[in-house]
Amino acid sequence: MRSEVVDKMGERRKVVILGAGFGGIAAAKALKAAPVDVTIIDRRNYHLFQPLLYQVATADLSPANIAWPIRGIFSRQDNASVLMSDVQAIDLDAQVVRCAGMEVAYDDLIVATGARHSYFGNDHWAEHAPGLKRLNDATEVRRRVLYAFERAEVAETVEEQKKRLTFVIIGGGPTGVEMAGSIAELAHVAMRRDFRRISPSDARIVLIEAGDRLLKAFPPELSDKAQAALEKLGVEVMTDTRVQDIDADGVSFEGGQIAAETKIWGAGVEVPYLGDWLGAETDRAGRVVVNPDLTLPGHDSVFVIGDASKVPWRDGLDVPGIAPAAKQEGKYVASLLLDRLRGGSRPQPFVYRHAGNLATIGRHAAVADFGRIKLSGAVAWFLWGGAHIYFLIGVRRPLLVAINWFSSYMFHSKGARLISGLTPKERRQKGEDTETRGA
Amino acid sequence: MRSEVVDKMGERRKVVILGAGFGGIAAAKALKAAPVDVTIIDRRNYHLFQPLLYQVATADLSPANIAWPIRGIFSRQDNASVLMSDVQAIDLDAQVVRCAGMEVAYDDLIVATGARHSYFGNDHWAEHAPGLKRLNDATEVRRRVLYAFERAEVAETVEEQKKRLTFVIIGGGPTGVEMAGSIAELAHVAMRRDFRRISPSDARIVLIEAGDRLLKAFPPELSDKAQAALEKLGVEVMTDTRVQDIDADGVSFEGGQIAAETKIWGAGVEVPYLGDWLGAETDRAGRVVVNPDLTLPGHDSVFVIGDASKVPWRDGLDVPGIAPAAKQEGKYVASLLLDRLRGGSRPQPFVYRHAGNLATIGRHAAVADFGRIKLSGAVAWFLWGGAHIYFLIGVRRPLLVAINWFSSYMFHSKGARLISGLTPKERRQKGEDTETRGA
Repeated sequence: MRSEVVDKMGERRKVVILGAGFGGIAAAKALKAAPVDVTIIDRRNYHLFQPLLYQVATADLSPANIAWPIRGIFSRQDNASVLMSDVQAIDLDAQVVRCAGMEVAYDDLIVATGARHSYFGNDHWAEHAPGLKRLNDATEVRRRVLYAFERAEVAETVEEQKKRLTFVIIGGGPTGVEMAGSIAELAHVAMRRDFRRISPSDARIVLIEAGDRLLKAFPPELSDKAQAALEKLGVEVMTDTRVQDIDADGVSFEGGQIAAETKIWGAGVEVPYLGDWLGAETDRAGRVVVNPDLTLPGHDSVFVIGDASKVPWRDGLDVPGIAPAAKQEGKYVASLLLDRLRGGSRPQPFVYRHAGNLATIGRHAAVADFGRIKLSGAVAWFLWGGAHIYFLIGVRRPLLVAINWFSSYMFHSKGARLISGLTPKERRQKGEDTETRGA
Repeated sequence: MRSEVVDKMGERRKVVILGAGFGGIAAAKALKAAPVDVTIIDRRNYHLFQPLLYQVATADLSPANIAWPIRGIFSRQDNASVLMSDVQAIDLDAQVVRCAGMEVAYDDLIVATGARHSYFGNDHWAEHAPGLKRLNDATEVRRRVLYAFERAEVAETVEEQKKRLTFVIIGGGPTGVEMAGSIAELAHVAMRRDFRRISPSDARIVLIEAGDRLLKAFPPELSDKAQAALEKLGVEVMTDTRVQDIDADGVSFEGGQIAAETKIWGAGVEVPYLGDWLGAETDRAGRVVVNPDLTLPGHDSVFVIGDASKVPWRDGLDVPGIAPAAKQEGKYVASLLLDRLRGGSRPQPFVYRHAGNLATIGRHAAVADFGRIKLSGAVAWFLWGGAHIYFLIGVRRPLLVAINWFSSYMFHSKGARLISGLTPKERRQKGEDTETRGA
């Protein structure tokens, strides 16, 4: 059957896209009318709307609200086929992608494999402080957060109860800020009536940031507003605090430690494998250094986009690792390929248009930075909500998702508040590790 | 803290309910106004709407559509507290329930722990043919069904592809009938445009029943209608066929075997533990034999209800293991307890009022048996839909659930079509068994 893949695509130019994130999807969609055969390869069968991942982690949304089967997105794009498979290697000379069980030949390759969270060499922290990149991560965090309250309810000592009601989030970027705000509201508002022996509002939520302010990518005044908003929600913000160790008992840092059953990692990301696969130069995070037209140096037909690539922007900054940037890069590469098919000359280099930064703090506060315009509070929040709904348009049933999202979000619905997976007993019987399953 | 449980409830009568299924929830709600303290103990944090479980298994609904956190259901019932814990033993003399990490004393005990599926002593079949009782089961079946199509798309031989597109359901009861119909529609309608190398409509769906007809609990003419409706959907129905073995390659029975990657078990249920816990007489399925007032013989303050108990009905039949029966029994026990509090005399024995049987076959056919009235086809289907929506009323956000359910159900939405859990690679790395995680 292997040959079949090649045969089927023999006549037309074969564009292979690795990864069905925002960048890969945008590139594939922009090639809809092109006389090429597009193959999207992803190890998952769904596209994940990562900006809302933290809301699954805090049970505001269900996995199905933020994930859409890739096949569904392309079921009506006849020049696109989807393969669910693990990429194991890329052979640049043979122009072949090696997957589990098969090889896929390409004429043009778009690498949009994204990033994963990084523990900066302390991988043993992973079991104690899961990150938030995959759907599995979100449901695992959700399980831990909800289960912590359940365990606090049956705690036998006050110390135990305190520890089980303490949540430490490491990393003051958007993910950390959004997680801290959401957990605070889950504890202080949504679940306040649910328990009899504990009061969820006693929960202690601590956000630890190594730098001197939250949301480094934002202007300082917005960092201050974000911190103020979090503190108003009862979150303890600790800046200039570098974590030294994370274990089952809690988090330790210079000058102290916090006993906490639930730890969440939002501190850093890295790009695995690509440097080796492509024999390419990368930065310390593993992001591939690309040409101004997003091609891999020395390989005009290989592109690296989204979180996987390092693209200079302005003021010594790189293009940020956010959805709009990945989408712009995906569309740019598609237009470049179309231009080449038309025999076009060397195209303009990729130019990133920054729409702005948005971060939400709980339900009714947010900070927004649109360059000249800087907003915070309710106005920013509605902007943020609008931006997400806008993103959702174009996926299936946006209205239903919007209804569900708004209703969950505004009315603290409990529908998604499920502790997934096996019961503690079953987990013990299976010698289950801390990893749980998503969706 | 252990003593706290007892202290808090010291003055008032302590009613402990084991299991938050239909029976347990109904009993607890019916005690809302009673001068008693109700404690609901469940190893999960959610109530599961089991009649729709098969729709999660076939990706028509998401786990959050059919599961509601127990605490949410009782957050406004101040005399009810919820403990998420594994029951390990019941001490009838000390009137104490032993849970992981704590003991809970009771004056009255309502055992509503339900049933689980049974392999009739062939437990090694479990890994090859998951049943459909827990949310985890449903997401595992969903994962297997969806992943089978993905694997067929990349199959290297025709035999392999055929095997991966063959689905065998064992057991011709409502679960088996509903699963077979849903998988047929998933393959023949919902996913028909999603693949490029295979045609999901080539999928072979086989329903195997040991008895001489489907839906034994229904009148014969409805069994025939159900079989006709399934065959119209392209399901092969094999009655009078007793399964002899199930392994990774397929299912074998007297006179043949079927190579199938996906096998689903819907053949039987059993009640674990209770016979030992209660030192009680049980039937072969482990269901506890109770008095006409649902008390455990010799223990006026211990009740066993729902799937966990064997209650005679009529014509030598027992009360069926369906949601309405469990709810009626829960309400009956609550009223009996209220009667006792008022110093009432010995109450009337429990009398089951049978509303009827309903089973759905795919999207637009169903069979309904209301005694005199027997329906099939579209009318029965709308009745069935109405019955489910009616059940949903009383849980949170019934409208949203109804919208989501109807839209998913009528429009073949793909939102829930997620392959949960780790990627095959990750599963291998973790030496992962076949069990996956729910919700």
